[in-house]
Amino acid sequence: MEKLRIGIVGYGNVGRAVELSLRQNPDMMAAVVLTRRDPRGIRTLTPGLMASSIEEAERYASEVDVAVLCGGSATDLPVQGPAMASIFNTVDSYDNHPRIPEYFAAVDSAARRGRRTAIVSTGWDPGLFSLIRLLEEAVLPEGTDYTFWGPGVSQGHSDAVRRVEGVRDARQYTIPIEDTVARVRSGEAPSLSTRERHLRRCYVVAEEGADPGEIREKIRSMPNYFADYDTKVSFISQEEMERSHNRMPHGGFVMRAGKTADGTGHVLEFRLKLDSNPAFTASVLLAYARAAYRLHQEGAIGARTVFDVPPAHLSPKTPEEIRRSML
Amino acid sequence: MEKLRIGIVGYGNVGRAVELSLRQNPDMMAAVVLTRRDPRGIRTLTPGLMASSIEEAERYASEVDVAVLCGGSATDLPVQGPAMASIFNTVDSYDNHPRIPEYFAAVDSAARRGRRTAIVSTGWDPGLFSLIRLLEEAVLPEGTDYTFWGPGVSQGHSDAVRRVEGVRDARQYTIPIEDTVARVRSGEAPSLSTRERHLRRCYVVAEEGADPGEIREKIRSMPNYFADYDTKVSFISQEEMERSHNRMPHGGFVMRAGKTADGTGHVLEFRLKLDSNPAFTASVLLAYARAAYRLHQEGAIGARTVFDVPPAHLSPKTPEEIRRSML
Ligand SMILES: NC(=O)c1ccc[n+]([C@@H]2O[C@H](COP(=O)([O-])OP(=O)(O)OC[C@H]3O[C@@H](n4cnc5c(N)ncnc54)[C@H](OP(=O)(O)O)[C@@H]3O)[C@@H](O)[C@H]2O)c1
Ligand SMILES: NC(=O)c1ccc[n+]([C@@H]2O[C@H](COP(=O)([O-])OP(=O)(O)OC[C@H]3O[C@@H](n4cnc5c(N)ncnc54)[C@H](OP(=O)(O)O)[C@@H]3O)[C@@H](O)[C@H]2O)c1
Repeated sequence: MEKLRIGIVGYGNVGRAVELSLRQNPDMMAAVVLTRRDPRGIRTLTPGLMASSIEEAERYASEVDVAVLCGGSATDLPVQGPAMASIFNTVDSYDNHPRIPEYFAAVDSAARRGRRTAIVSTGWDPGLFSLIRLLEEAVLPEGTDYTFWGPGVSQGHSDAVRRVEGVRDARQYTIPIEDTVARVRSGEAPSLSTRERHLRRCYVVAEEGADPGEIREKIRSMPNYFADYDTKVSFISQEEMERSHNRMPHGGFVMRAGKTADGTGHVLEFRLKLDSNPAFTASVLLAYARAAYRLHQEGAIGARTVFDVPPAHLSPKTPEEIRRSML
Repeated sequence: MEKLRIGIVGYGNVGRAVELSLRQNPDMMAAVVLTRRDPRGIRTLTPGLMASSIEEAERYASEVDVAVLCGGSATDLPVQGPAMASIFNTVDSYDNHPRIPEYFAAVDSAARRGRRTAIVSTGWDPGLFSLIRLLEEAVLPEGTDYTFWGPGVSQGHSDAVRRVEGVRDARQYTIPIEDTVARVRSGEAPSLSTRERHLRRCYVVAEEGADPGEIREKIRSMPNYFADYDTKVSFISQEEMERSHNRMPHGGFVMRAGKTADGTGHVLEFRLKLDSNPAFTASVLLAYARAAYRLHQEGAIGARTVFDVPPAHLSPKTPEEIRRSML
């Protein structure tokens, strides 16, 4: 069997996790790491795997079957997504939800120019959660959707707390409110305020001499990030921060409660509990990399999303095996 | 907008539910009911909707865009599946798991002969649960799968109890064992005996003069059906049976617990809680009917399964709407 040759573009949390995940996908291998940093500073974990500058990407056009884009959504992907899709088949986990249509359009035209297939916004949200939202709505047309996130670390909210004066380090956990999840699960279909859905828990290392009461107040009143939530702030030492908050768990629920036309009620629920957000995201990216390659083999050109991928394309198994063992 | 014209083949629980579900799918309409009974005995709920003999199916070839096959899996579909797929695009919820490959092959060759598209074994299990099993395995290659069914009525087990001497009527509920589900959800990945997964709860109306102890013993020792489970048998009156056990709830869980290559653990879970099994199955059938029509428009010929359907094909929304609102 010829292995699928994977290019890893961007070597951060997700990029390194993609490299590791290849060990669980025997139909794939790493071809190259591309980085915007000086590649001589990059030490890969895979014997023989070289890092090269992203500026040299064109040179790898025929050595990479699918490039997995692992740059940040804020500033890397808006540039790298279209640039790479004109050279390689690509997958990414672009997660800036409101700008997805714009990003999709930019990647689509680049991929068409290069006659490549680019699957954008995979991962778990967007990605698996999006797929489940569509599926649940299609099979239960009359109902109400709920997405809950967490318990998990939000990078954006942690950064916001770190910008507060007197804060040296911070970690913010988004936590779905259990009673609310239970109400939805019971089929009640409640309408919910922001405050009823999630609470926010912050662990803060204060600068010496800073006033904890003032920091707490500044965090809790911060518009958009915290003001609409019940927010709990705890002060801890730098040692405890490093010991107890060094992992990146995440997850959540996609639920739908509704009725069929006979008036009976139904509740659909998909749930993820992830001990490492980047590790799981990387694992999802590789399943979609396999699909991107197959779509390209079938002649699909341009940008696609999880909504366009026949599920069988995600699996290394043959259609016969899948039907026999999973149907 | 031209409505999708749906033929309903077989007018039992699922067939009647398909008719009702059309009210929630404004892009579809009922074209005809086809039955193997005398059609003059069938009263539909939809003004103007006629029932006709399944023998006359050919006459409706150009009036039906997709035929939804609602016959029983035991004896109806093995005949009706291939017969209808040579005339119409079809969807069905064929659920005799071990015989699916054989059924798929028969429907496939009939559909190819008629140049039609036939999606077999949709519904929720097989169907949505199958899709989730594939998805969960593809995105988390190292792990263990669990499917739990219920709480819900099992028709096959209820029938088995009814065949016991001295039993007038019976209803059997399959119930997932909560402690076991909680163990899987915690990420433990246990290996489980049959007895640890589900328990079986039977409500029995005994014939006058029958010995309850003997009935209980005969049920609990029945091989395949009950011997490997903890089975609880309760005796009730016919009135209570009719009052408290006249609904067809069902559902279950598809779970996967595993590790990514960095050693962190992840738990994926999909759950359905259905107050009416046939009503929900019908609702799923219609989403796949929409997909069958679209696949056929694209030139797909032959049998397909849920694994082959791009999720967007299930939704009445446009690709742009889906990307904007659900990604
Ligand atoms: N859809 C989802 O469910 C989902 C879930 C999780 C994450 N994501 C997305 O994944 C993106 C990447 O997440 P991440 O955790 O991998 O971000 P990250 O660790 O910050 O890495 C982002 C980029 O920063 C660069 N970088 C990494 N370490 C660096 C260092 N020490 N010095 C300078 N630059 C460094 C790397 O690019 P170079 O190697 O080119 O310098 C890397 O590609 C996020 O922005 C998010 O959009 C999506
Ligand atoms: N995949 C899944 O998740 C899933 C879930 C639930 C059910 N299912 C499948 O759906 C199938 C149908 O379920 P169902 O509950 O609709 O079965 P059902 O009520 O027994 O109907 C089966 C067929 O029996 C005939 N029938 C109905 N009422 C009758 C009556 N009073 N006298 C004589 N014949 C009658 C109808 O055919 P005619 O009109 O042609 O006579 C009907 O199509 C099941 O066998 C199962 O395989 C699948």
